[in-house]
Amino acid sequence: MTAQSLGVCYYPEHWPEERWETDADLMREAGIAYVRIGEFAWSRLEPNPGEYDFGWLTRAIDTLHEKGLKIVLGTPTATPPKWLVDRMPDMVALDADGRPRGFGSRRHYCFSHEPYARECERIVTALAKAFGEHPGVAAWQTDNEYGCHDTVVSYSRAARDAFREWLEAKYGEISRLNEAWGNVFWSMEYRGFSEIDLPNLTVTEANPAHRLDFRRFSSDQVLRFNRRQVEIIREFSPGRDILHNFMGSVTDFDHYKLSEDLDAASWDSYPLGFLERDTDDEAHKLKYMRVGDPDLQAFHHDLYRACGRGRWWVMEQQPGPVNWAPWNPAPLAGAQRLWAYEAFAAGAEVVSWFRWRQAPFAQEQHHEALLLPDGSRNEAYETCRAVSKELAALDCKVVNMRADVTLVFDYESDWAWRIQPQGADFSYLKLVLAFYRGLRKAGLTVDIVPPSAEAVKERKLIVLPGLMCPNGELINELATSPAMILAGPRTGAKTDDFQIPSGLPPGDFRKVIDFDVWRVETLRPGAQVRLKNRDAGLCLERWREFARPGEGAMPIIESEDGHPALLANGKRAYLAGWPTEDLLDEVIAYCLEQAGLPRLTLPDGIRIRDHGPHRFVFNYLEDEQDISAFSGGGEIAVGGKRLAGAGVAIVAKRGDKVDR
Amino acid sequence: MTAQSLGVCYYPEHWPEERWETDADLMREAGIAYVRIGEFAWSRLEPNPGEYDFGWLTRAIDTLHEKGLKIVLGTPTATPPKWLVDRMPDMVALDADGRPRGFGSRRHYCFSHEPYARECERIVTALAKAFGEHPGVAAWQTDNEYGCHDTVVSYSRAARDAFREWLEAKYGEISRLNEAWGNVFWSMEYRGFSEIDLPNLTVTEANPAHRLDFRRFSSDQVLRFNRRQVEIIREFSPGRDILHNFMGSVTDFDHYKLSEDLDAASWDSYPLGFLERDTDDEAHKLKYMRVGDPDLQAFHHDLYRACGRGRWWVMEQQPGPVNWAPWNPAPLAGAQRLWAYEAFAAGAEVVSWFRWRQAPFAQEQHHEALLLPDGSRNEAYETCRAVSKELAALDCKVVNMRADVTLVFDYESDWAWRIQPQGADFSYLKLVLAFYRGLRKAGLTVDIVPPSAEAVKERKLIVLPGLMCPNGELINELATSPAMILAGPRTGAKTDDFQIPSGLPPGDFRKVIDFDVWRVETLRPGAQVRLKNRDAGLCLERWREFARPGEGAMPIIESEDGHPALLANGKRAYLAGWPTEDLLDEVIAYCLEQAGLPRLTLPDGIRIRDHGPHRFVFNYLEDEQDISAFSGGGEIAVGGKRLAGAGVAIVAKRGDKVDR
Amino acid sequence: MTAQSLGVCYYPEHWPEERWETDADLMREAGIAYVRIGEFAWSRLEPNPGEYDFGWLTRAIDTLHEKGLKIVLGTPTATPPKWLVDRMPDMVALDADGRPRGFGSRRHYCFSHEPYARECERIVTALAKAFGEHPGVAAWQTDNEYGCHDTVVSYSRAARDAFREWLEAKYGEISRLNEAWGNVFWSMEYRGFSEIDLPNLTVTEANPAHRLDFRRFSSDQVLRFNRRQVEIIREFSPGRDILHNFMGSVTDFDHYKLSEDLDAASWDSYPLGFLERDTDDEAHKLKYMRVGDPDLQAFHHDLYRACGRGRWWVMEQQPGPVNWAPWNPAPLAGAQRLWAYEAFAAGAEVVSWFRWRQAPFAQEQHHEALLLPDGSRNEAYETCRAVSKELAALDCKVVNMRADVTLVFDYESDWAWRIQPQGADFSYLKLVLAFYRGLRKAGLTVDIVPPSAEAVKERKLIVLPGLMCPNGELINELATSPAMILAGPRTGAKTDDFQIPSGLPPGDFRKVIDFDVWRVETLRPGAQVRLKNRDAGLCLERWREFARPGEGAMPIIESEDGHPALLANGKRAYLAGWPTEDLLDEVIAYCLEQAGLPRLTLPDGIRIRDHGPHRFVFNYLEDEQDISAFSGGGEIAVGGKRLAGAGVAIVAKRGDKVDR
Repeated sequence: MTAQSLGVCYYPEHWPEERWETDADLMREAGIAYVRIGEFAWSRLEPNPGEYDFGWLTRAIDTLHEKGLKIVLGTPTATPPKWLVDRMPDMVALDADGRPRGFGSRRHYCFSHEPYARECERIVTALAKAFGEHPGVAAWQTDNEYGCHDTVVSYSRAARDAFREWLEAKYGEISRLNEAWGNVFWSMEYRGFSEIDLPNLTVTEANPAHRLDFRRFSSDQVLRFNRRQVEIIREFSPGRDILHNFMGSVTDFDHYKLSEDLDAASWDSYPLGFLERDTDDEAHKLKYMRVGDPDLQAFHHDLYRACGRGRWWVMEQQPGPVNWAPWNPAPLAGAQRLWAYEAFAAGAEVVSWFRWRQAPFAQEQHHEALLLPDGSRNEAYETCRAVSKELAALDCKVVNMRADVTLVFDYESDWAWRIQPQGADFSYLKLVLAFYRGLRKAGLTVDIVPPSAEAVKERKLIVLPGLMCPNGELINELATSPAMILAGPRTGAKTDDFQIPSGLPPGDFRKVIDFDVWRVETLRPGAQVRLKNRDAGLCLERWREFARPGEGAMPIIESEDGHPALLANGKRAYLAGWPTEDLLDEVIAYCLEQAGLPRLTLPDGIRIRDHGPHRFVFNYLEDEQDISAFSGGGEIAVGGKRLAGAGVAIVAKRGDKVDR
Repeated sequence: MTAQSLGVCYYPEHWPEERWETDADLMREAGIAYVRIGEFAWSRLEPNPGEYDFGWLTRAIDTLHEKGLKIVLGTPTATPPKWLVDRMPDMVALDADGRPRGFGSRRHYCFSHEPYARECERIVTALAKAFGEHPGVAAWQTDNEYGCHDTVVSYSRAARDAFREWLEAKYGEISRLNEAWGNVFWSMEYRGFSEIDLPNLTVTEANPAHRLDFRRFSSDQVLRFNRRQVEIIREFSPGRDILHNFMGSVTDFDHYKLSEDLDAASWDSYPLGFLERDTDDEAHKLKYMRVGDPDLQAFHHDLYRACGRGRWWVMEQQPGPVNWAPWNPAPLAGAQRLWAYEAFAAGAEVVSWFRWRQAPFAQEQHHEALLLPDGSRNEAYETCRAVSKELAALDCKVVNMRADVTLVFDYESDWAWRIQPQGADFSYLKLVLAFYRGLRKAGLTVDIVPPSAEAVKERKLIVLPGLMCPNGELINELATSPAMILAGPRTGAKTDDFQIPSGLPPGDFRKVIDFDVWRVETLRPGAQVRLKNRDAGLCLERWREFARPGEGAMPIIESEDGHPALLANGKRAYLAGWPTEDLLDEVIAYCLEQAGLPRLTLPDGIRIRDHGPHRFVFNYLEDEQDISAFSGGGEIAVGGKRLAGAGVAIVAKRGDKVDR
Repeated sequence: MTAQSLGVCYYPEHWPEERWETDADLMREAGIAYVRIGEFAWSRLEPNPGEYDFGWLTRAIDTLHEKGLKIVLGTPTATPPKWLVDRMPDMVALDADGRPRGFGSRRHYCFSHEPYARECERIVTALAKAFGEHPGVAAWQTDNEYGCHDTVVSYSRAARDAFREWLEAKYGEISRLNEAWGNVFWSMEYRGFSEIDLPNLTVTEANPAHRLDFRRFSSDQVLRFNRRQVEIIREFSPGRDILHNFMGSVTDFDHYKLSEDLDAASWDSYPLGFLERDTDDEAHKLKYMRVGDPDLQAFHHDLYRACGRGRWWVMEQQPGPVNWAPWNPAPLAGAQRLWAYEAFAAGAEVVSWFRWRQAPFAQEQHHEALLLPDGSRNEAYETCRAVSKELAALDCKVVNMRADVTLVFDYESDWAWRIQPQGADFSYLKLVLAFYRGLRKAGLTVDIVPPSAEAVKERKLIVLPGLMCPNGELINELATSPAMILAGPRTGAKTDDFQIPSGLPPGDFRKVIDFDVWRVETLRPGAQVRLKNRDAGLCLERWREFARPGEGAMPIIESEDGHPALLANGKRAYLAGWPTEDLLDEVIAYCLEQAGLPRLTLPDGIRIRDHGPHRFVFNYLEDEQDISAFSGGGEIAVGGKRLAGAGVAIVAKRGDKVDR
């Protein structure tokens, strides 16, 4: 079993070479094991075309290695230097308005631009040859945060040409594409693949099938781009783990599929930035302003554990205020420690802080770090040191278990429902998060999984809201599974071609539970579908389906206007709308009872997670809370029965079945 | 007199040919008389350049005709196929940012592009020759929803060149244009027509006279485009009615003028979509979420009755939830029936549902239809069948009467005040709708009319708010009319050249009532002009004028700061600001009293309409209401004294004067 | 001492020549001394390339001069005619999206376009030669409202090339630029100046140092453009004052520096337009809707007095409703007079109304004037006449005094914090205005000054919030000043290169008071930092710094979470966050006590200003207020102890020290 440890992101090129040794000593003192370096350094590694300067990087790696630190080496392809862009100005992506996305920050390239891809192969090859077998190099990171700043999709000529090829490979005959997309509608039929444009700047909405295929293509281009780097590194740096640092809340490409080429997944976790930037609920933002959303990070942890097939890191962990959200508050004292433990409790191998020392120049001057700009220690440095000591004392190791409860998250569904929300506030990610939150509030440990038959095997509760088009194997698995299954809304709502299934939704999912959806409606904020025998707080909102139960299915909850809100046939249930938080709690309680699973009612802001021999208890509120009822009865190794704001308790517990 | 009947929009090319006969049978069973087909089918009618395939359309028309259905044949020019766009890429419109509006949805053409116009002549000629004398073809529809998706205005080179010609034809000499536009201001003077650009992308606002002329030109281009099709159809399809389906809430070109080339007007009525998309008042949206605004559809009915000189249809009637508004709720049970009767009560010849069968593919998958995607009957199918039976039982026929009350709606005024709102929330359409709502709430049947002398003759109450520049004939008619006249705010505020009249507003309208407006002010939400002896709810908001009464005029209502709010001279009144709903009720009550017209005070959400031998009573609320006081005392043929939510009552009444 | 007088802006070219004499007579009757003409008239001065027509202007000037009016002649370079733009289409600026900003309104030129600059030299030379020594010409105005409509910054090729030259001149070596900007970050390093692009259309934010230099360059381009005109006018029109009319709230270039080339500053004051357009607080907008913000105009008066080194005008004074704000209400009766006196009380030489007669055509039809469009007198004409009589009766003269209290406003800080707000609602201008408002509410007369050592000499209280990088001389002056000094937040937060100072903020400002700032956080609306022993209304919001007191400094106010909110060392204080209005009142009270300055507590909406022998009292509310407590005890020359809404009282007082 892998010991859980800490890391940090470091940019030696930003600081005088004389300082490097001091930095390495300070890292060791703080208990850091891994140091990520090299990413973004192309202009220093190749200051002029073809003129490599690897000396400084060699010295930096040597310095760190000599102090016992393990290096994660990043490829610099997220920041091609200006001379390269000037040589091939059409390498940049075009935005949806057709404007080139210029040099001067980062990620200024189009994934479909072949000459740029070859430049990347060249620099990665040079780096892999130079450092691939260095004993200090423990792992690699490809590029940086694919997709951050809306960079997956490009409307360039290169993208258009590649999309045409991708379509031809997929469909073979143009008639098959025309049929799949329904192009007879509005005379959108093509006579050949070379007539197809990208789906931007249309007068009104483009064909959703066209858009979904463009999304799939764009995702594939990222995979292809990444795979080229992976293959080079595998050749020249045998035995090293290859990772990529996915950015939280970015869903524009399929992280499961890209991860198949990696040894482990990792993600960049900025709890306060994400809360501020990505949340709609103002009261929620204020409430969790200094500790972060109690479920968003955990959701990503569980997602990337699936991506990495059990192996995953937090590659960048927020250390203090950041610079990029609309507002950037400071964490409550202790919050950074809570974040680290939430990750370790979810099985992270490494939690790596971003970044080592706050930069006094350029774009991220207000992004905190372990050290202040003047090189002295900041708050997070002390946090890091304290956590590393605790980790050692507790002998924390990665323990991968198969959770009884699983929640399916699917990238294609996210693209599909963004293309066709039907109601302005329909968000697949928010829908899945709502279910995740409900499960967490019930005290459950959850596996997020892709929509595959294998992933849902041997579970007691399988939840799959909004899954556009479950594949045949998954449906067969579900149809024979003894687990409690909760689906809907929108589960099975489309075919793979983005059409309404013949015979109406949920299409083949009817093998799991028999009903059909003959109508959907969407509801503006304030509009509700009231339910029979229930208060106004337990209702449907945003999205509602009109369903007819089929054989064996019957309404469990009904609307006041006489339609089923929750349908069930034994241990198969379908929720025909977007539930309020309270209604979802009721539905989850129902499902847990059916599944024979225990349910806790955690207080506001308290979350728990069982991992290996420990139960972790987290307090996401700013006020102290009593957690005695939820600590599980074991010995409290860390913390106490009264948990301060942002506090963590670690309780010894009986061993669970340990295998995956 | 024309019997009132039902229709449906059908796309045979979307479904297997074997299904067509079944569809025709089902249509007959539902009481459908008219079937619109063919629009959008260019890629099927001409799959390759010059290679026509009319066989399928012939078979579709034959199939429908054989079952006794009458065909409305649409021209396919709203959706030119990709091969055509690729042959003349500059045929697409440019948006105000200068971006080409691409292929992939619909309406991707510029009205000023002459080669495209010739392509349209070619395909329309071919169709008209092929089907013009087919006994099943009862009528034609030109193109589809001119102006939908903001497609009237184009900033292309073709538009620029055509605009220069249009200006030269209008002004002859550049000096006349310079004077009319006031181009001495800010050195905007031109030395020739070829110096004039389109009024987009200017540093700050462009000259409003420049913008208004560009709006007039753009409207004329639509008329010209349509007329070319009409002339071809007239030649090759004698005796058939030619219609166009105007889109609700689109005012970017002059529907009165375009309709002069048609035999009847028609419009596309989506009550829930319009409410959700076009309304500002959130509470109002929630209140009428499932039945629609009680006045918006009626307003359009009255408008298109004027456009069609008494002959008009609803060409597309919402059958269930649609797909294109921000949120898309389901109608309350019965609402679709209410909508149909609101149209028939206003004299519609045909109400035609959109569409026959819900498409499982492409952009409108979530747009309901009479049939479900699987071909089975949906809610609206049953509604259609029920309404057709009722129509037959009641022997409903079109009866055109000249209403005592008329409200002037003018397209140019709409363009003018959009160009120069002066206050961010000034909307001419909303202003006229407010007056219309007030008249409807008082139980009145209203004719919407263009600003012409003929249109206001033989009325008892003439209302003309915001009419920018009444023409001389209209002014003369008003000046001698015995009717009660209510004008303002902004009536007569500009000359035809978009200048303030010499001698101040209302310019020549002073012949009707003598006063001048020396100042206007606009008021942000929350700001009010309080009135003497009135509660805060009866005040002016948004827009206020400072007026001085002239000879014979005197203030009827005054502001607390001492300016007239309502001026009158006998039966001529002028309202010097934007009234609250309650104040407008008072003003209308005053006018009705002066006009000697009866006034009802309808309950919230109740509306009535007298048509031929019937009084129709509509309940736009979701709750049951007692309508005994408003049913007029005759025998209740349909419905009862207690009217359910979305209910309709039809009451027999004494015959009215019937002529027009 | 200069007598204070009135002026007006006049466009003789808009009116028939026969009217000019009448206008001149009416101006005299209203007590007008100065008439600004000629700006915007290029198309009349040069109707065809090289073909001058100065005859009409000669006659206009003669007519006015003969009536004893003094002319301010404007150069027409803000509105190049169409023929000129057609000759050099690339003379227009490009906006941040890369779109050319077209002809059809005004300011359609790029400051970096050299051929256009030469055209300006040509027309200015011709005008200066023709009219420079005309006895009626008393002064010149260059161009019009530089920067209005966001026209300082251009993303054109001309701007890019000029920026490269500017950078090369500034840095000499590219390595120095790379270091100053920190371009090692994200591989942004350049190999030469010709690689540098403008900082628009980057994928995510561009380097803030890059952006700040581009702002500085853009400001310099305006200075350079203006200086070329000034030099020509100086040569051909000796002895005449040269002014420019700065637009209120425009801060995109350095008005202090540009004013160094002028004889006097002037600005365009639109109290209601600015309130409506530039304020965030809806309640505040409604409260002051008809009189304007009580401090915004005064702030600008004090700012332009500094720009003009004591000599300044209001070149355009709002006379009634305007046309360009989102909503445009009418002033309360008397408000225009109050505005004039607020300017005279601040030492204005001239208050000049915009404009003489309301234009019935083109863009500003709804902008009121002294005369109505029909040539009759409007409200502001009578106001002008009344004020001119009062001025004469009071013998009002400009008296320049050095105020005890000074507030530093710095253009570079404004650019810097707009580039890097860190919290979405951080605005330097709003921050400085908050301090100004607090000082005004305490009854103080304030000098706004640039960040120079000279400017802060001989003061009793020096306030410098948010001053990014105080220069060495200023720091030295402050370090030895006996005055009370109040700095922060963000004072000294960056170096001149837009980097965090080594040794942390406030960098060298530590010589004034010793502390450091190790963290900043920003707070969304609703989030507060509560303070010890204070109510919730006295707290920090928006922006908060975590500071550590150094030698001699100690916390005066502390947050509940234990950090200093106000630090002080004797008479040097630093405020570590954005205070609520009530907290700022407390801080200012503390500073005034330390400074030994008296403090008034003016009622809501009341402001006072001492000028020469008078105390002026202003009532910005709509209701009458009792001002006896604040009138100073002298004889009331104008107004009375009870002051009507928008009222002005002028009270005789003892003479002050008069020198500057």
